[in-house]
Amino acid sequence: MDYANYDIKKLKEIYNEIKIEYNNIKSKNILLDISRGKPCKEQLDLSNNLLKLEMKIDNLPLDLRNYGVLDGLDCMKRIFAEILDVEMENIFIGGNSSLCLMVDIISTFMLSGDMGLNPWSKQDKIKFLCPVPGYDRHFSICENLNIEMIPIPMDNNGPDMDIVEELIKDDDSVKGIWNVPIYSNPTGIVYSKKVIERFARLIPKAKDFKVFWDQAYALHTLTNEFIEKDNILKLFKNYNNENMIYIFSSTSKITFAGSGISCIASSIKNIEFIKKIMSIKTIGNDKLNQFRHIKFLKNLDYIKSHMIDHKEILKPKFDLVIKKLNNLKDIGIIDFREPKGGYFISVDTIKGNAEEIINICKQLGLILTPAGSTYPYRKDLDDKNIRIAPTYLNINELDIAMDIFILSVKYVSLKKLINI
Amino acid sequence: MDYANYDIKKLKEIYNEIKIEYNNIKSKNILLDISRGKPCKEQLDLSNNLLKLEMKIDNLPLDLRNYGVLDGLDCMKRIFAEILDVEMENIFIGGNSSLCLMVDIISTFMLSGDMGLNPWSKQDKIKFLCPVPGYDRHFSICENLNIEMIPIPMDNNGPDMDIVEELIKDDDSVKGIWNVPIYSNPTGIVYSKKVIERFARLIPKAKDFKVFWDQAYALHTLTNEFIEKDNILKLFKNYNNENMIYIFSSTSKITFAGSGISCIASSIKNIEFIKKIMSIKTIGNDKLNQFRHIKFLKNLDYIKSHMIDHKEILKPKFDLVIKKLNNLKDIGIIDFREPKGGYFISVDTIKGNAEEIINICKQLGLILTPAGSTYPYRKDLDDKNIRIAPTYLNINELDIAMDIFILSVKYVSLKKLINI
Repeated sequence: MDYANYDIKKLKEIYNEIKIEYNNIKSKNILLDISRGKPCKEQLDLSNNLLKLEMKIDNLPLDLRNYGVLDGLDCMKRIFAEILDVEMENIFIGGNSSLCLMVDIISTFMLSGDMGLNPWSKQDKIKFLCPVPGYDRHFSICENLNIEMIPIPMDNNGPDMDIVEELIKDDDSVKGIWNVPIYSNPTGIVYSKKVIERFARLIPKAKDFKVFWDQAYALHTLTNEFIEKDNILKLFKNYNNENMIYIFSSTSKITFAGSGISCIASSIKNIEFIKKIMSIKTIGNDKLNQFRHIKFLKNLDYIKSHMIDHKEILKPKFDLVIKKLNNLKDIGIIDFREPKGGYFISVDTIKGNAEEIINICKQLGLILTPAGSTYPYRKDLDDKNIRIAPTYLNINELDIAMDIFILSVKYVSLKKLINI
Repeated sequence: MDYANYDIKKLKEIYNEIKIEYNNIKSKNILLDISRGKPCKEQLDLSNNLLKLEMKIDNLPLDLRNYGVLDGLDCMKRIFAEILDVEMENIFIGGNSSLCLMVDIISTFMLSGDMGLNPWSKQDKIKFLCPVPGYDRHFSICENLNIEMIPIPMDNNGPDMDIVEELIKDDDSVKGIWNVPIYSNPTGIVYSKKVIERFARLIPKAKDFKVFWDQAYALHTLTNEFIEKDNILKLFKNYNNENMIYIFSSTSKITFAGSGISCIASSIKNIEFIKKIMSIKTIGNDKLNQFRHIKFLKNLDYIKSHMIDHKEILKPKFDLVIKKLNNLKDIGIIDFREPKGGYFISVDTIKGNAEEIINICKQLGLILTPAGSTYPYRKDLDDKNIRIAPTYLNINELDIAMDIFILSVKYVSLKKLINI
């Protein structure tokens, strides 16, 4: 069934059929969006008890309505400590956005430096390593701060650690590396234990080199299994690298995407540093929302069963997308890997086709993440990666969306093959 | 009754009585804190409906639980537009902390500059003007970023505008000025219309000079009157200075201090700039909490009646403090002005006495804001200013606290007068 096996005449026949279908869909004025990893209504409904909880706060040892508690409520720390397999003392609780915490930390390194070291903004050039394809918002942070980004290839086990080790060993302008180690955005890759171990024993030239570890999808399984986290702070400590790693997480895709709780996990020394930074900009984050989350999320066992409820909603959507993509894979015009968790499916088209496919989809009313978004500076040099976010649409909409996607991939691929 | 009228012998007699009282209080192991402007339990209780509101969000045009709406809900903007007397289009809604918004804006000017101008961190020296006494957290922001602070004297009408105009006209390293124009922290001063007009027509050398206008106490009256705000953005626009001013406000001292809503008001061009900045660090702030506030606060009329309820709780506390302070004023060892709103009373002791008074209070179990806090770098060169925050304690506790304060002022003043 591979297009490569057809002659030009046959391909033109198929192209003409596709062209009719294209016009047919175009006339329907569809508007669907699979560009962002947003939870759907049914997922949000799973947490509606957050809206209904009785807020009995009278007999608590402190008044949650008032100022204070910069680093967050202990019970909220305990929950994140369980999720991330670290100790409570390693946790700082933020507001509703872990992205915000990342920007706060990096801005601080830029302006004030890491605990007495030279501020990054005072140095000629700062570089970050960016495993690709990756999360566009991580790359935007760097681009906005004029931090040079170096793409790092990934395989099924995570980033190519030979390249990472090589790039950091003699160059002290390399200050950080972005990671989504579990169900990586967009590939769904889970870093192997061996890769994680190599992270823990990195020997960077820069004393203020930082490993940014975005656990956005720590529990976001599409199976019945959860990924073990194995106290990564301890692992880094074994190699005297405990101050090198900053872990970020949030409940954005556990409870409410717009009203969740975020956190940083790091060494005790780093947490002290973070508290100092944060004391300049806030007297404390929203403790009432922390309290709601404590009451609702209870403990890791409950959260896991809650995440299985999410999975029940999401699995059929991912299955549908994968089934349809397999059709394209069979005819040799895309490649992809089936994720076991996370919010995305990363599709590699034939080189040079991604941007045009995304444009054709747009013409037909399907919005995808802009071409190149999964690469630093939006530069996918092969122009082949497309990120699909199947979570937000309902299954019928997703069915239509994927038909448009399939058609667009075929349309563009055929055009190239028959040289129109 | 002025101590100045007594001879040394009489002063020593009084000192000995005070000393006995000192030992008496010390034996009681009191611990009271009037260091921070925190609302008290009864004030927080005024907003308890926020905890009980029925969150009917099903029939709204957008899902408040999900990601999005970077600049906040329109109805929340409308409320702040009313509070600040600006237009809705001039408002950006933040999280629970206006301090956080201030740091975000200034960090952006430091790292990326103001709309294409040279980033402040790339310039040799950056200076801010700081009307004194002022808000310690404003000064901490500058100190943390290595921004040089220049104290500006204030009188009953606001900062000395002759000095302000002089300092900014030829020096483009002067980039900003802090203001709490209504019920200034800690003096309670309300900027006069004439002073505000002079702000609006400032002609700074620096193209990126900014007026930071912290409306923390916009509606926080201790009378039945509210201060008119007279669309200050329009006023600045009249002098082509509409991009010079950033107004900050929050509901922290209207609803819940730890779980309020913050905002920035500025020109449309600045709001676009802010949205660009914020899009790097968040997908949107907590819309559910905005929704709670919209339902609870309703409109300016309701908010004003709510602020009168606050006043009913606070007025007796301020009256008590003022009554006791008048006693000290009569004997010539302090000066202060009675505020008509806000959260503080600013006391000027005899020069050189403030730090010791604060220490004596501490020995007796009363915590005050550390000496010098109301000045840049905590340097009150006259060592005379003490900030009293009477809101948090109940009236009985406040009575005890003020007795300790009175005693400590007398104790230190007498010691100096009789040269012990």
